[in-house]
Amino acid sequence: MTFYYNNIYINATSTVAGSYENSGPLSNYFDKTYEDFYINEKSWETAEVRLIKDSIDIVLNKLNKKLNKVDLFISGDLLNQLVASNYTARDLQIPFLGIYNACATSVEGLILGASLISGGLIKNCICSTSSHNNAAEKQFRYPVEYGGIKPLTTTFTATGGVSAFLSKKKGGIKVESSTIGTVIDNNIKDPYHMGACMAPAAADVIYKHLKDTKRDSSYYDLILTGDLGMYGSLILNEYLFDKYDIKMNNHRDSGCMLYDKKMSKVYAGASGPSCLPLVSYSYIFDLMKKKEYRKVLLVGTGALMNSNMVNQKLSIPSIAHAISLEV
Amino acid sequence: MTFYYNNIYINATSTVAGSYENSGPLSNYFDKTYEDFYINEKSWETAEVRLIKDSIDIVLNKLNKKLNKVDLFISGDLLNQLVASNYTARDLQIPFLGIYNACATSVEGLILGASLISGGLIKNCICSTSSHNNAAEKQFRYPVEYGGIKPLTTTFTATGGVSAFLSKKKGGIKVESSTIGTVIDNNIKDPYHMGACMAPAAADVIYKHLKDTKRDSSYYDLILTGDLGMYGSLILNEYLFDKYDIKMNNHRDSGCMLYDKKMSKVYAGASGPSCLPLVSYSYIFDLMKKKEYRKVLLVGTGALMNSNMVNQKLSIPSIAHAISLEV
Repeated sequence: MTFYYNNIYINATSTVAGSYENSGPLSNYFDKTYEDFYINEKSWETAEVRLIKDSIDIVLNKLNKKLNKVDLFISGDLLNQLVASNYTARDLQIPFLGIYNACATSVEGLILGASLISGGLIKNCICSTSSHNNAAEKQFRYPVEYGGIKPLTTTFTATGGVSAFLSKKKGGIKVESSTIGTVIDNNIKDPYHMGACMAPAAADVIYKHLKDTKRDSSYYDLILTGDLGMYGSLILNEYLFDKYDIKMNNHRDSGCMLYDKKMSKVYAGASGPSCLPLVSYSYIFDLMKKKEYRKVLLVGTGALMNSNMVNQKLSIPSIAHAISLEV
Repeated sequence: MTFYYNNIYINATSTVAGSYENSGPLSNYFDKTYEDFYINEKSWETAEVRLIKDSIDIVLNKLNKKLNKVDLFISGDLLNQLVASNYTARDLQIPFLGIYNACATSVEGLILGASLISGGLIKNCICSTSSHNNAAEKQFRYPVEYGGIKPLTTTFTATGGVSAFLSKKKGGIKVESSTIGTVIDNNIKDPYHMGACMAPAAADVIYKHLKDTKRDSSYYDLILTGDLGMYGSLILNEYLFDKYDIKMNNHRDSGCMLYDKKMSKVYAGASGPSCLPLVSYSYIFDLMKKKEYRKVLLVGTGALMNSNMVNQKLSIPSIAHAISLEV
């Protein structure tokens, strides 16, 4: 299911990151960073709300836009019931649609936003997402303070809030096309190996996008996946070649770019809905504006993991969505 | 944010219900019912997956349509991470977008589906949702077996899976317009009084819909809210009159229609994302096809409740979306 767009732009983006992200190689690219997981809030959950709200303030400031001129807020996050997005929407007081495809949520949002603008239903929208390391660990696994030992395939949920402002007004990054993904389940049951769960979904949507658009992978200057991490990236490349005969010489994974490799605590790399936008909305879009990359395919990758289902020994289905961006 | 549509139809719908719903006054209207909460599955969560899958089989059968002719599956449910929808999507193997606005999810799905078809991005889609009483109780409150005593304002999560097939092909119920709601929070903190949380959000979207469309409430033969229950319905009517000077002589609430009043275990009525569609996709659409109702406004109402936030003594924000249907 590939959509093509005419004159839809990501006019501006914003990135708000935590301390781990600020210790990584992209620290200079973020709009705002916090050194503390609590961010002057009483809980990690309300801290995550703050991350999104900050990112919305920043993106509106960049465009000198008032909130009451925004038609729609599309957002989702990793917290159960999309808590961070809901409490943000409460304070925005503009129409809201909640979405969830795990760590593919950012691209799902961009696709929906671009599609609703393209269809003439809205003029503009803000698409946001967030994740918070401690809030996610507590919810999906164990509280961080337990100090559980983890396998090396584990990824580290990024702490960040990110927003993108989309409209038909020329300026920024152009949204060229998008491909909505299908849920893929290769019977992986290991909640500490999300890269393995998600790689086949990423391969599937990359294959379908290239097939629908009749493009070769080399059409893109960069194919940027979301949060496969070191091992997931290896699996994606092998899987794509073995199953679809596709080679990518231009692939990078945001999960492998957000942190320094010497940060041992982050294991196989970064993950979480904010991971892909923290890398792309800052560093990659900057390179695009400098014309170092002209055509980029963002591939959001989401493991639809639920601890209750993992405890029932069920496999972890995954999904990926792709969006083609140009300057 | 009100959208108008040309020639978008809900061609068919399906309803699969549990035993409580089957003991209620609408039992003859459901396509399929189950007497057991497990539905031949090993857990309540996988039972809920089965409810959606059944509803999709039924809606496709009604239209004599094959799954590979469906462009998109839009779905969300009450389980964390939208588990029931994700595992359904895995088996469907068609493009999937996960959405969540609590018990307003069904209307959110219809709005998105109609909007994407209207914008020419897809030809058709299936919009689904589900809820399962025991799975929801276990997740949001306490396992049912604990036998906790509840206040009379409590509502009873309906067990059901529902689907709607939308396209531009003439036939069925016409989608006329829709209004996306705003998150409203009137500082209610009681997780056993969802009706009070949601009534102001319902009032807000009804007011905005009528204002945008320059209609009087009497324009509609029926304004059907989702799951306010007995007390929430009273609050809605009072609130709408006090704050917006709007009187509804044509209001009913699905939560007050799904069960018999003599069923004491259901307290103030039914709730859950499947509640509104279980009533509307069966009984109400039947009356519409008989031309007893010609113009109906469905108002999905969702309390964006999260137990973690309730434990932090935070208030419960709510949202409602409205969709105008015609024959």
